[in-house]
Amino acid sequence: NDLCKVIYVVSQGNSTKIIILQDNLYFDSYSDVTIHEEMIADHVRTNTYRMGILRNSESIRGKVVLDVGAGTGVLSIFCVQAGAKKVYAVEACSIAEQAVKIVKQNKMEDRIEVIRGTVETVDLPETVDVIVSEWMGYALLHESMLNSVLYARDKWLKPGGLILPSEAELYIAPVSDPVVEDRLHFWYTVKDQYGIDMSCMSDFARKCIMNSDITVNSVTVEDVLSHPARFARVDLYSVTAEELQSVKGQFTCECFGSASVNAFCVWFTVTFPSPDKPPLVLSTSPFKPETHWKQAVLYLDEPADVYCDLILCFITIFLVLNYLLVCGCKVS
Amino acid sequence: NDLCKVIYVVSQGNSTKIIILQDNLYFDSYSDVTIHEEMIADHVRTNTYRMGILRNSESIRGKVVLDVGAGTGVLSIFCVQAGAKKVYAVEACSIAEQAVKIVKQNKMEDRIEVIRGTVETVDLPETVDVIVSEWMGYALLHESMLNSVLYARDKWLKPGGLILPSEAELYIAPVSDPVVEDRLHFWYTVKDQYGIDMSCMSDFARKCIMNSDITVNSVTVEDVLSHPARFARVDLYSVTAEELQSVKGQFTCECFGSASVNAFCVWFTVTFPSPDKPPLVLSTSPFKPETHWKQAVLYLDEPADVYCDLILCFITIFLVLNYLLVCGCKVS
Repeated sequence: NDLCKVIYVVSQGNSTKIIILQDNLYFDSYSDVTIHEEMIADHVRTNTYRMGILRNSESIRGKVVLDVGAGTGVLSIFCVQAGAKKVYAVEACSIAEQAVKIVKQNKMEDRIEVIRGTVETVDLPETVDVIVSEWMGYALLHESMLNSVLYARDKWLKPGGLILPSEAELYIAPVSDPVVEDRLHFWYTVKDQYGIDMSCMSDFARKCIMNSDITVNSVTVEDVLSHPARFARVDLYSVTAEELQSVKGQFTCECFGSASVNAFCVWFTVTFPSPDKPPLVLSTSPFKPETHWKQAVLYLDEPADVYCDLILCFITIFLVLNYLLVCGCKVS
Repeated sequence: NDLCKVIYVVSQGNSTKIIILQDNLYFDSYSDVTIHEEMIADHVRTNTYRMGILRNSESIRGKVVLDVGAGTGVLSIFCVQAGAKKVYAVEACSIAEQAVKIVKQNKMEDRIEVIRGTVETVDLPETVDVIVSEWMGYALLHESMLNSVLYARDKWLKPGGLILPSEAELYIAPVSDPVVEDRLHFWYTVKDQYGIDMSCMSDFARKCIMNSDITVNSVTVEDVLSHPARFARVDLYSVTAEELQSVKGQFTCECFGSASVNAFCVWFTVTFPSPDKPPLVLSTSPFKPETHWKQAVLYLDEPADVYCDLILCFITIFLVLNYLLVCGCKVS
């Protein structure tokens, strides 16, 4: 199964590092129940999608929907709850078998058609009025999931059709991660404990921990050293695959005070239009209730001291490269 | 939440890697600092090895030692602290580079020689008086790590030489794991939350969670349903590689009371001889302080109800097969 790439995630305590490897090892984690447990138990995620879909029921009622990467079919069922006449739930991985059972258990097999395959290769009997997708939903597993949504838009969405969510934004802020400092310091404590000087391991630890891979962490508000800066915005209606490959990242942050920056924290929001209301935002900000996405942390090679009121200007092309790559964007 | 891990040992080219599935995929390797942090921060493990070695200083002082799978060289340094004249620290992975630095930082390069390679292929200038090894130390990475210790014993240990630790024992007890029941029940709660009946996912979840792979868990005393039963004992001085391949597992457990058994918990002890004292035991029992090994849990396909005072007789050949395989034993 080409879509389900192998990704290794290193876990320690509440910190998870994602390493994307280019090798032949294959593991389809979407076949395992755990990832789906995590997504559905994430109330911020699931409820915001539900509200985002229900708020657009005027555009969904009696209409035809395409769910890109449908998983267990939950978003498709929300669309039926919003009045959809027909939903094509396209899912490439074997979890589609569970989606079939769930659709049947909820007596919606007349309205939801689960189609096993990639959205790039399936054949639908008709174009659709609405596209719904959780392409960022643990989408780190699918590098090109956003590309799949754009492909579906270009091939299957009627002119003037609705895309949910309709917009995505990426934010960055410098952080001071205390856990890393503790982990580096640990090697200085072994001498008192066991009479062995292991302080030279601290350099090795620094190279292992503070590298160019992204780490998924819970970043607390106290760790964030400046107001966030938005560095990218994607309009799902208009962005092209080529544009995704050349998103520039440039921003400035004004730090709250003096601190040592050892990392950047990156997170995203997605937005659902809301007729007659402000748009509904699903945010993975450290300033908001936590989601299963937590935040992405990119460590600096060396901490950098920053001072109060100093404007910091960062070209983040390298730093955000890894993160945006996994979201299906490329940074030049 | 690092309560629950499922371990796959995967061969990739010439190297063996672990994939540990937790909430996400988990990748670990002896080249990464994390595993060494975990081992050295495990005070029960490291201090028991230290005490086990120091208590045998009469047999180590002025003698020659072989450390099989030396890692960062900690056990080798303990042997020098116990008076060893010379230690050959054999380590196959790149962490050997750190061992060299640590030995130097502790000014022991005249007494500890770090040799990069497998114990099966390295050439030592002499036979040794003592073998020390932590072959169970996250030894899941090396299926045949115990085999390597036996190989080293047969090739390099002088007659009458000392092996630390000298004995290993495996224990088993039936358990009732509450987390699994919660995870299976979760799918029944989605209807109230989102109006979607996902109860059919419970069967799929059961197949994913309660399979024949081993899971590493913290098992609490309350979860254990009977006194433990010892089902295997390995005498490091005399066991042969062939015998390791045919360890039979048969035992009886008398449960404390009525309960539903959904798994078996397996753990080990290793023993260090202690001249003029009772032997020193490093235990990973759920009844003892926790170590980084936690316990191994093997789930039943279906829970089994057990009743007070009923003698339960289990043939655990299949159940322990997976676990013992990864410890380098085979069960017939």
